[in-house]
Amino acid sequence: MNLESIRNAGRNLLIPVIRLLVSAGISPFTVTSLGLLLTIVASWLVWDGKYIAGVAVFIVGSILDAMDGELARRQGIESKAGAVFDSSCDRIGEIFMFAAILAGKAGAAHHELVYLVPAALGGSFMVSYVRARAEGVNLSCSVGLVTRTERLILLMMGLVISGLWDARAIVIALAILAVGTWFTAGQRMIKVFRDGREISTDGE
Amino acid sequence: MNLESIRNAGRNLLIPVIRLLVSAGISPFTVTSLGLLLTIVASWLVWDGKYIAGVAVFIVGSILDAMDGELARRQGIESKAGAVFDSSCDRIGEIFMFAAILAGKAGAAHHELVYLVPAALGGSFMVSYVRARAEGVNLSCSVGLVTRTERLILLMMGLVISGLWDARAIVIALAILAVGTWFTAGQRMIKVFRDGREISTDGE
Repeated sequence: MNLESIRNAGRNLLIPVIRLLVSAGISPFTVTSLGLLLTIVASWLVWDGKYIAGVAVFIVGSILDAMDGELARRQGIESKAGAVFDSSCDRIGEIFMFAAILAGKAGAAHHELVYLVPAALGGSFMVSYVRARAEGVNLSCSVGLVTRTERLILLMMGLVISGLWDARAIVIALAILAVGTWFTAGQRMIKVFRDGREISTDGE
Repeated sequence: MNLESIRNAGRNLLIPVIRLLVSAGISPFTVTSLGLLLTIVASWLVWDGKYIAGVAVFIVGSILDAMDGELARRQGIESKAGAVFDSSCDRIGEIFMFAAILAGKAGAAHHELVYLVPAALGGSFMVSYVRARAEGVNLSCSVGLVTRTERLILLMMGLVISGLWDARAIVIALAILAVGTWFTAGQRMIKVFRDGREISTDGE
């Protein structure tokens, strides 16, 4: 997919920054935590209706979040705890951002968000959850249409257009996210059924 | 913990029903799906402010959900796919129930639910997610104060009291759930750090 090459190009652009962080001795734990902190600040800006500022901070937070894994690899301190912490911080960031959309100015102006936020938040979570739960029983499950990068891009586009035009753009972005994430969770569930139907849980 | 013995006593009570299902040749997949369907019906009743009826249906759905694992074991068809499907249906049921509280009569009457529903839904999800993600890297992580049984009991108590008194009880139950689930997710994250900090992800 084309998005994969954009992602890789983005990662390559970050290599000098990662080298700098390595030589400064900054830990991936710090980078992950700072990434989440910025996402929470971005959520607060979005809550307050400052969508463009929110997206700007959100992008910086997401860039930090894209670097932690590579940073850990280069420092030779990749750990299981780090992997779980990184994924968990991604999820916490999503909760804050969706909650801010619901509870802030966008939610006050568009009542349908009381349906769309749980649908999009729930769907986003299910995409990650089905994969994690599948990996917990040793099935791989990273297929699907709307993974985290697509979710971030959709959300950011919705926020930018909301800043330039109207919070209605967030409503539209969340509707697309809701449909896309549940579809993706379904794709992953189907893969789990294909791969794991005949394998006993006692067979490990 | 005492709750564990209640849980086991409840499971023993269900054994005759499970035997019946086995002899009728009903698959655990059907039971899990029916459990989720009933939870969705219960969510709709809760959305509509019919809390006592909602809890009644919710209890039946949860009982079905408690039987599927044992049913699969007795039929000798326990599978990885079944385990992932069962957990995923639990999460989907939670999303529907929390969304119904937010979008229905309770949410219309108590605006603070725009904060509490994402907090409680997010926290509940994090409890399950941290465990699943940890198991994905071969760490066990089932510790913690507020697991699914406690969540169900708290939620049902809030709904029953809401039916007898006022939806304010749901607000209180969700506030307790929000604090309890994030605390539990934190407990699990700490366990992951203790167990998985020194273990490289490449070491498998």
